[in-house]
Parts: sequence; structure tokens; C-alpha cells
Amino acid sequence: MNRLSLNQITTRNWSLPQAVQGCVDAAIPAIGLWRDKVAETGLTRAAKLVRDAGLAVSSLCRGGFLTATGAEGHRAALAENLRALEEAAELGTDTLVMVVGGLPEGSRDLTGSRARVAELLAELAPHAGDFRVRLAIEPLHPMFCADRAVVSTLSQALDLAEQHPVDQVGVVVDSYHVWWDPDLARQIARAGDRIASYQVCDWTLPLPADALLGRGHVGDGHIDFRTLTEQVTAAGYTGFVEVEIFNQQIWDTPGEQTLATLIERHRAHVAQR
Amino acid sequence: MNRLSLNQITTRNWSLPQAVQGCVDAAIPAIGLWRDKVAETGLTRAAKLVRDAGLAVSSLCRGGFLTATGAEGHRAALAENLRALEEAAELGTDTLVMVVGGLPEGSRDLTGSRARVAELLAELAPHAGDFRVRLAIEPLHPMFCADRAVVSTLSQALDLAEQHPVDQVGVVVDSYHVWWDPDLARQIARAGDRIASYQVCDWTLPLPADALLGRGHVGDGHIDFRTLTEQVTAAGYTGFVEVEIFNQQIWDTPGEQTLATLIERHRAHVAQR
Repeated sequence: MNRLSLNQITTRNWSLPQAVQGCVDAAIPAIGLWRDKVAETGLTRAAKLVRDAGLAVSSLCRGGFLTATGAEGHRAALAENLRALEEAAELGTDTLVMVVGGLPEGSRDLTGSRARVAELLAELAPHAGDFRVRLAIEPLHPMFCADRAVVSTLSQALDLAEQHPVDQVGVVVDSYHVWWDPDLARQIARAGDRIASYQVCDWTLPLPADALLGRGHVGDGHIDFRTLTEQVTAAGYTGFVEVEIFNQQIWDTPGEQTLATLIERHRAHVAQR
Repeated sequence: MNRLSLNQITTRNWSLPQAVQGCVDAAIPAIGLWRDKVAETGLTRAAKLVRDAGLAVSSLCRGGFLTATGAEGHRAALAENLRALEEAAELGTDTLVMVVGGLPEGSRDLTGSRARVAELLAELAPHAGDFRVRLAIEPLHPMFCADRAVVSTLSQALDLAEQHPVDQVGVVVDSYHVWWDPDLARQIARAGDRIASYQVCDWTLPLPADALLGRGHVGDGHIDFRTLTEQVTAAGYTGFVEVEIFNQQIWDTPGEQTLATLIERHRAHVAQR
């Protein structure tokens, strides 16, 4: 239980103050915040709320969207990510989750988009160091390659991260996005202290009409969380296990009930025995 | 045009005789057959039809489904694939496309399922040699890992294929399944004469309610077919380019119209200039 974190998208109908109170009531020690929810509450107030509640902030979601073309797109992406780094620092988290973005409208230049991600990461990394916040590159499931993230495997994320100091750029291991990868065990071992965040939710079928919302509670799907957690732990990761679920049915469930399920599933499938 | 092949699932509402006639009328020189359509027509009659029409049979879809557990599941998979090999030989194709199967009901043992695939391939490979038909392992997009194919990357397919003589086990490069792979260029070059089939259709968004049916005509989506085809050609592949599309709207289109689109898109995006 002392490693469980609620990513607040999992209780999407809760405001930030409600999610903080929910964690306190359920004795969940950490929370992953989203920038839109922080903005709703106000940055200073949000930071004070989590601090006063004694919660750790396991991550801020999210920076990224680095694939825009042209000088203007480049400038805008840089500025937005600097703001996100500043917010992360103010909120007291050392981890900014980076969803790098998909192909620009009408583009088929996947190689070029991937090169732009590398370039912008190189610009951002020193700033991350200044803020003492780590850019955590999240490989997204290949089904999101065209529209959300051209970083599709842990190996690719590590190739990018290893260009920079370990305290500036790391990676996210999100079960939903990487569970299928035949090379996963080897890449997790390789990742070592590059693992900035371990996020969990399950692969459930069928995929819903909106493929983004197909994620299930840990234990409801096809992922072997016992093995995955052992691999992440063996790599040296000692941080929080953040539950991040995009699922309309779960969003429509009362938050208290969702948190009770999180705790039950964490005990059954994730927590070390 | 002399390398274009119609995979008959693309004109799903056509019977095998209709698809053969459609290819003849459109001057498409090859066809990829499906076992259920062959069975509808009768194996001997189907073989005679394509032979008399002067069509090459670029592949038979499909063998596979090798992940069943238990002695009975094992025996059934072996028997079914031997039948498929025999049909392929009778139909005059040297390529049996293998969709290896997903996780067995209730299983989370992805590593175990992958090991079973390797075991059954080892049993089948010598028989493939006897029939002079190559088992063509098709890596499927990772979004089908749980329910259709635990072989998810070209690298993984090649690791399996390279255990066997090149004339017994090869791989399929299907644009839809592999286009996102950051390691793709390197793996295609590695594949060389292991490439038994090159299948094309485009990645279009949004994914439909049935994620299986989201494939689009070449040119309608996000894949750079010019680059992909160059890579496959540079690897030494000189066989057919088979258009295989699962898409309800395209299935509802008159076959003649679909074939006209195939030809137009092949010229615009695939054929060497």
C-alpha cells in the first residue's frame, strides 16, 4: 500500500481537491496530477492542497507534443513544456510524463517526426535539470503511433533518454502500452534507473469505440502484473505504482468505490508479498 | 501492375470464382486465397479455376493458431495446419500465411504462448518442406496480441523463422501491422530472402468499433508506402504486392470498383517508377 499512487485521470469526475481528499480517506499515499485539473484548482492552491494533505506527487501529466513542424510549432512546444516543468516543480514532483505527439496533420514522415522529438528533448533536457524535474518519456502502444505518440517501444524511449543525464530524462513503463513487447524483459533490465514512473492498468477486450478508453482495472485483463512488477523492481525501481485508467465505465463509478478496487487489486496483483 | 495481387478478403462479398474473374477482367495477375472461400468452391475446382485463368496464387490465408494448450489442442493445431499445407500445395502457391493465435482463454502467460508457437513451428517446418510450401509467419499489430497473434514484431517473427531452413519458414511483411515499428528498416534488411509475402493496406483513423476492420486503401492513411516498398525491394523481395483490406465499407463496395481503386493506388504509391 505504501507504493500505491492514484493517477487522477482514474477518477476523472473528481476535482483535484476531491481526489486529494479521496486519497487521504483511503490512505493512498501518493497522487499523479493532470495539468488541466491543476489549472481548474489553481496551481498555488493545488500545490498547497497536496502538501497539506501529506501526499507525494508521483508525476505530473503531461508534457510532450513535440512533433509540430515549423518554427512556430517548435517555439510553442518549447514554451508549453517549460510551463509544464515549472508547474511540476511547484507541485513538488520530480517527474513530468511526456507524451511525445503523433504525426502532424497530413504527414507520413514518421522518421522525421521521431527526429523532431529527439531535437526538442535535447533542448528541454537542460531546463529539466534546472527545475530538478525529470522528463519521463512514455512509449505509447503502437495503436496510438499516428495520432498520439511516435515513441512506440521502451527500447526507442531508452535510445532517446540515454542521450541525456539520467536525472534529466527517464522513461515511463506503462503496462498497457508495453505488455505485448517481445523484447520487454530485456528493455526493462536495460532501463534500470531510467525508470521514472511505473504506471499500471490492464489490457481488456474488446476495444471500445474510442480506443483510448479501453483500459481496465488491474486484474481484469490479459497482463501478468506479478511478472511485470518483478521485472520493474529487479531493474531497481523503488518508486510509486501509479494506477492510470482511461475507461468511461470506471469514470462513471463513484470515486470511493474506484479507490477501493484499486487497493484490492494492488494487494492481489502488484504488491510484493 | 505485374506485381499486384488481390487478397480475396478485400472483395469479401465475391465468391472465389467471382474474384478470379474479377482479376482476369482487371488484368491483375495474382490472387491471395482464403481457405473458407476455397472450401465453399471446393478445393479441386478452386485450383482448376485459378490455373485455367492463368492467375498466380500469391498466398493461402491462413494457417496458424498454434497457442492452444494441452495434448488435444496441440494435436488439433498440427492436423489443421497439415491440411492447410496440403491445400496450399494443391492450389499451386508456395506460401501459407501463419497467424499464430492469441492467448488461450483466461491465460496471462504470454511467454508460454510464444514458446508453444516455436514448438509447433518446429514440428510443422519439415512438413512444409515436404509440400514445398513455406510457412510465412505474420507478425500482427500489437493491438491483436491478446486475441489473435502473440507474434507482434518482425524481429520476433525472424527470430522464429531463422530456426529453420529458409525454404520452410519465412515471414510476412504487412504494412498495417509493422509500419509503426522504430526498428522496421533494420528488420526488413535483416529479413532478406525470408520475406515470403508483402501485404499492403493503410493505417486509417479513427479505429472502428471492430478494431479488426479499420484498414484502408493504400494512400488513405498514414503509411509511407514509397519508403516501405523501397526497403522491401532493397531486401531482395521480388514477389507480389498483395492488397489485403479488412473494412466493411470497402466490402460493401462493388468488387470491380474496389479493383479499380487497387490498381490506381498501386500505381500512385507502390509500383516502382
